[in-house]
Amino acid sequence: MRIGIMGTGMVGQILAGKLAELGHEVTIGTRDVARTLASTEPGPYGNPPYREWQKKNPKVKLATFAEAAAHGEVLINATAGVAALPALQSAGEANLNGKIMLDVSNPLDFSKGMPPTLTVCNTDSLGEQIQRAFPKLKVVKTLNTTNAHVMINPRQVADGDHHIFVSGNDASAKAKVIEYLKDWFGWKEIIDLGDITTARGTEMLLPVWIRLLGALHTAMFNFKIVR
Amino acid sequence: MRIGIMGTGMVGQILAGKLAELGHEVTIGTRDVARTLASTEPGPYGNPPYREWQKKNPKVKLATFAEAAAHGEVLINATAGVAALPALQSAGEANLNGKIMLDVSNPLDFSKGMPPTLTVCNTDSLGEQIQRAFPKLKVVKTLNTTNAHVMINPRQVADGDHHIFVSGNDASAKAKVIEYLKDWFGWKEIIDLGDITTARGTEMLLPVWIRLLGALHTAMFNFKIVR
Repeated sequence: MRIGIMGTGMVGQILAGKLAELGHEVTIGTRDVARTLASTEPGPYGNPPYREWQKKNPKVKLATFAEAAAHGEVLINATAGVAALPALQSAGEANLNGKIMLDVSNPLDFSKGMPPTLTVCNTDSLGEQIQRAFPKLKVVKTLNTTNAHVMINPRQVADGDHHIFVSGNDASAKAKVIEYLKDWFGWKEIIDLGDITTARGTEMLLPVWIRLLGALHTAMFNFKIVR
Repeated sequence: MRIGIMGTGMVGQILAGKLAELGHEVTIGTRDVARTLASTEPGPYGNPPYREWQKKNPKVKLATFAEAAAHGEVLINATAGVAALPALQSAGEANLNGKIMLDVSNPLDFSKGMPPTLTVCNTDSLGEQIQRAFPKLKVVKTLNTTNAHVMINPRQVADGDHHIFVSGNDASAKAKVIEYLKDWFGWKEIIDLGDITTARGTEMLLPVWIRLLGALHTAMFNFKIVR
């Protein structure tokens, strides 16, 4: 399948690497290809600069947001939350319309120091902002409640006995995303929370996620909904 | 132990009933004793009016907020979130100072319909507001992430194999609350998230909790942090 991923950061890299390994044709979109390739700085989570990562992942193509969006039959938004709407504007509505987009980003604001706050929450969410901005894009909020290593390999934590959520307005898009999550990454436990407004709930999990990261001294954990 | 519980609603009733059953001397505080006793309306969650509940729980005393706070060696805030600060003002700072208060309330705003939003979040929390208003009260936010039946009997769900959190500035108060949660209710898995600012994280779990209630068609669930 042709997959377009928005965002060259750690989450985009990890998703792209896994999907390329599975045989998908993956293009990662960025604002400025030359600048992304020129960077020698490691990412904020210690991930290597994109040029180093690309040497180990030669099948993944780097392109503009518009080219990556045009390439993808299915899209993934893995930008930093504050960059999501500009990235998608740059991708161009015509390249988004009618497609399913897994939105894995979170509206984290690190500008005021740690811990980050959310740029939007409570009465709105980034998932809803994206859906409103691109009404013909089928936005499915998912995977944003766990770290990227767990996203692509849930069995790394407790043999996959924990949950991931989906939120979205289009039932058939959500059903397809649930299949992708199972087929691509091996997710077993997926809860459909409802329409895209339920993305408020999963984005608002981030503050406790960040505090748990501090309390547990590891990012290799996830939420399980125990009944 | 003498325990003062603020709030006559379902959460206050369930906590008071359990603590009285354990042999504690429990007084529930309310704004207007006569009005609470006169009410014949069931609560918003279908719980009986206080006067009916009291017939089945004769050992629990009903009093003003000030009297209940004065009575308690340990206090529990089980008011509706929007009523918490007025209730504690009414209780009087002198009756609160130096005491431990388990704050189990959530700042839910139902005034704009369902689902509720939060009256405070992201850069502040109800737990912090209470701590700032009463600097000598030892506020420990806890139990607010699950329903009252699970609060007092975690083994009702998956034999207690799930988590509860504590947030607070006073380390010895948190240590005591952790003991209370174990001794009173049988909690096994308690995570200390840090100071009272971490209450933002647990209060911001409520939006996804409410959506899970809708998706799972039961309130008998809880979060487990799987490693």
